[in-house]
Amino acid sequence: MSEASNTAPLKTGATIGILGGGQLGRMLSVAAARLGFKTCIYEPGGDCPASHVANYHFQKDYADTDALTQFAQSCDVVTYEFENIPAEALDTIEAHAPIHPNRDALTTSQDRFLEKNFLTRIGLQTAPYAAVDDAEGLQLAIDQIGTPAILKTRRLGYDGKGQARLMSPDDADQALADMAGAPAILEGFIDFSHEVSVIGTRSLDGAVSCFDPGENVHRNGILHTTTVPAKLTPSQRTDAVLLTANIMGALNYVGTMGVELFVTPQGLIVNEIAPRVHNSGHWTQSGCAIDQFEQHIRAIAGWPLGDGSRHSNVVMENLIGDDVDRIPDIAKTNTAIHLYGKAEAKKGRKMGHINTVTGPAT
Amino acid sequence: MSEASNTAPLKTGATIGILGGGQLGRMLSVAAARLGFKTCIYEPGGDCPASHVANYHFQKDYADTDALTQFAQSCDVVTYEFENIPAEALDTIEAHAPIHPNRDALTTSQDRFLEKNFLTRIGLQTAPYAAVDDAEGLQLAIDQIGTPAILKTRRLGYDGKGQARLMSPDDADQALADMAGAPAILEGFIDFSHEVSVIGTRSLDGAVSCFDPGENVHRNGILHTTTVPAKLTPSQRTDAVLLTANIMGALNYVGTMGVELFVTPQGLIVNEIAPRVHNSGHWTQSGCAIDQFEQHIRAIAGWPLGDGSRHSNVVMENLIGDDVDRIPDIAKTNTAIHLYGKAEAKKGRKMGHINTVTGPAT
Repeated sequence: MSEASNTAPLKTGATIGILGGGQLGRMLSVAAARLGFKTCIYEPGGDCPASHVANYHFQKDYADTDALTQFAQSCDVVTYEFENIPAEALDTIEAHAPIHPNRDALTTSQDRFLEKNFLTRIGLQTAPYAAVDDAEGLQLAIDQIGTPAILKTRRLGYDGKGQARLMSPDDADQALADMAGAPAILEGFIDFSHEVSVIGTRSLDGAVSCFDPGENVHRNGILHTTTVPAKLTPSQRTDAVLLTANIMGALNYVGTMGVELFVTPQGLIVNEIAPRVHNSGHWTQSGCAIDQFEQHIRAIAGWPLGDGSRHSNVVMENLIGDDVDRIPDIAKTNTAIHLYGKAEAKKGRKMGHINTVTGPAT
Repeated sequence: MSEASNTAPLKTGATIGILGGGQLGRMLSVAAARLGFKTCIYEPGGDCPASHVANYHFQKDYADTDALTQFAQSCDVVTYEFENIPAEALDTIEAHAPIHPNRDALTTSQDRFLEKNFLTRIGLQTAPYAAVDDAEGLQLAIDQIGTPAILKTRRLGYDGKGQARLMSPDDADQALADMAGAPAILEGFIDFSHEVSVIGTRSLDGAVSCFDPGENVHRNGILHTTTVPAKLTPSQRTDAVLLTANIMGALNYVGTMGVELFVTPQGLIVNEIAPRVHNSGHWTQSGCAIDQFEQHIRAIAGWPLGDGSRHSNVVMENLIGDDVDRIPDIAKTNTAIHLYGKAEAKKGRKMGHINTVTGPAT
């Protein structure tokens, strides 16, 4: 069992297990190596981005209890790069190694309805919402929330998938059909001026460090750019950071979390939370001494956090699908390139990102 | 055979071979991954720092021709993290994959006498020097250069090893005995105010990019800190960068090189050159959008170089031996930590380094 089951910091040479082998796992693995840790990736897919920069790769299914047991026994602490991990897999792992962030954070954020209930309970603003299980439920939800609104599956949605817009009540049937029978949630439209996100980290001993909020622009439902500093008043900035700390505290969270916020005249409205490092925090690689990935590793390893201060202004841009064809031109500029080593540039696939330092921090 | 045998840039997914599995290979491997490349480490030692963050590790001896052949055949281009590679190993590899930097650079820098001859030939200043093969040769060299002076083995010396000081001619016998019969070189003392180094990179098409010179402080013959900016007049800075470009041009060099310079009232005197990424360039990880490791990978992969501009002032400090015991305290500060994943903190062993951003670039 791990040293991290208490708060003694993990020592160089300890092994950090990461569930999921995508780009977030890849960058977590590099951050772990920077602190002298070894990493072990659990990912059913072969030749995955994280395995290129890790010590070990369990290329096994999440239903393979023996493999999960062996994986957990070889790790001092386990973390994850995505939130849709089967509960049974967690049961198996938890018997052999501590997992951070904890199960509460995971189950809360796996379900949009539970997540909004949680946020409401701790006094934060969300879009108006209602659970929708069938046509009758959708009708009640429309009566309550009105249109325009968005119907979303409660679970497993990301990057705009599993969503249907209702511009009027007439769209109800089609929207419900789009859910393919999955439990759903209807969310009212928010009249917001822009979206920002806060990347915060909470340590094993409860200390919190948040990076400056970044301003997000989406394209086709996928994050396109994050810019720091975001357009926020000083009090909005303080609110954004404090509410992130509140969310993490309420969940007894350990690790890095992404909190997406809509900026409105009525204050900040929480769009969603992600119990992991977040695409909108990639700018920290070029803007801070210690980035979001290292903060996460520090937290789950029982280390002190970096202070999160920002030395530079940065624009992060995602490279989606054939955006990577621009790399030869981007390489001629003084921009930091991060490619994920994915073999094929499919439409909508995150292939990499670039960070451009635009000046000293303002 | 590789695409890099002409100047077509390597594409994502190509494999870069690295001879040597130490910390420089480790950081090269991470830089290669950032650009979407796979890496293959050739290193006889097991559990080596570079293998923790690489796709493949050939744990084979440099005399194993079959393994070297297989290694080279699996790589699109080969590079190295240390200069003392056996010539026979290079012969084997070169038959199957291009090697950068080239053999000229390697053979020149493997031998202090050949290196100083080369530097003198292209018009640069070095310490007064003379080759020493025996007692008679040492006497002649002392007559020519005087004392104090330093006797050094021509090959395989690093971090102050294989060196003996002669404070007076009386020290000649002991100094020669210290060489244990190895061919040597006597170097006159230089009266310098401080040491700086330039980290430069030359691309496949001959473009050159140099980072700002850093100022080095040594302790017990090992680099202790590098600080940017270095104390240099504008004309000294220009000289330092130009002479580095001249060295790389004269060697038809491809990759990153470290050039150590003594600053004296009579101008800049070249101490030594290293045909690889260099400890005194580690500050670039925190000071520049594109660091020395990525510049090296860009060069050998036929990519354009970053412009090398610096956004921040930085102090890099090496963690030698039990300096790593300070990590728990260092982790509490806003300093970037780089540990190499070495199991044992032996005396004099480079265990890691830290980069502290001290402000915007001045």
